[in-house]
Amino acid sequence: MKALEEKILREGTVLPGNVLKVGSFLNQQMDSDFIMEIGKEVARLFGNEGVTRVLTVEASGIALAVAAGIALHVPSVFAKKHKSANMPKEVYTASVYSYTHKETYEIAVAKEYLGSEDRVLIVDDFLANGNAVQGLMRIIEEAGATLVGCAIAIEKGFQGAGDKLRAEGIRVESLAIIDSMTDESVSFRVQG
Amino acid sequence: MKALEEKILREGTVLPGNVLKVGSFLNQQMDSDFIMEIGKEVARLFGNEGVTRVLTVEASGIALAVAAGIALHVPSVFAKKHKSANMPKEVYTASVYSYTHKETYEIAVAKEYLGSEDRVLIVDDFLANGNAVQGLMRIIEEAGATLVGCAIAIEKGFQGAGDKLRAEGIRVESLAIIDSMTDESVSFRVQG
Repeated sequence: MKALEEKILREGTVLPGNVLKVGSFLNQQMDSDFIMEIGKEVARLFGNEGVTRVLTVEASGIALAVAAGIALHVPSVFAKKHKSANMPKEVYTASVYSYTHKETYEIAVAKEYLGSEDRVLIVDDFLANGNAVQGLMRIIEEAGATLVGCAIAIEKGFQGAGDKLRAEGIRVESLAIIDSMTDESVSFRVQG
Repeated sequence: MKALEEKILREGTVLPGNVLKVGSFLNQQMDSDFIMEIGKEVARLFGNEGVTRVLTVEASGIALAVAAGIALHVPSVFAKKHKSANMPKEVYTASVYSYTHKETYEIAVAKEYLGSEDRVLIVDDFLANGNAVQGLMRIIEEAGATLVGCAIAIEKGFQGAGDKLRAEGIRVESLAIIDSMTDESVSFRVQG
């Protein structure tokens, strides 16, 4: 998605530790019209897949999941993050290790919001090491639901998780794939 | 908003401690088309007020803030929640006491996303004791920005915070105001 690459180049900042800050339009502040454009692009890519649920993790994934849900006209669900493993029985859970915060947290989805009849699209703002996506995939598996694919705004291609998922046969569509980045430049993968 | 009242009666559950559970369409699971209808209703109510920013608190406010931002074509910003008071200097902060979790947390907004030129609309899913809204109001004041008003999906009228804000001259528009609720019935305030 050309518009996303341009926005990253114009408004993004590369911070130490391979962190790409896009808080001005994709995270703490959300450029509403642009978020909706991303939602529509996700719907264009996955509109024929019979998606019944969009699934993400709080908090930074919610905006894109809502926009994708609006564009696809299906409900979106977000997994809640908890530090403890004390979860009630009526939820699906998975452990996720966060490289950013150097800790393991639990994600949970109430069983009533995900079932074996569901065709689920994972939506998230970033795909870096893939831990969050893998946690969501375990929850989908626990629910007996079908994973349709992953729609990601920004994939850090140089971390390899996206290509690993693709090699496993999972459809991963990233609207921008960063192949390398430094303080001064960001290189995007050319997508067909 | 008649459709919201009907949805609360159909899908909401009253839990002990005056908790109204609407997770099936407004919180953990989001009914996308309905969330967008709420966004459009907020835009209808505040569309002539020159709003430049929609402001909410993570995580449950984000979906409605995004929808309102899309409908108003302005950016939405969410305050992050932290348990500690150790905040960098480049953020506005406020302390908020949560009755639900019986603890005080800090909310923070990066200064770059809110300025004195902004006309801010607070959006949230619930207004109960008003602590979250008051925290957001302190952040708007710190930024020297102008508070346009508050757009709330569900106000617990019987807790009084909404009417207190109205008595202070703040425009509070709640799409459903619950005047009383029990396990068996929910009564809504008739709005003009």
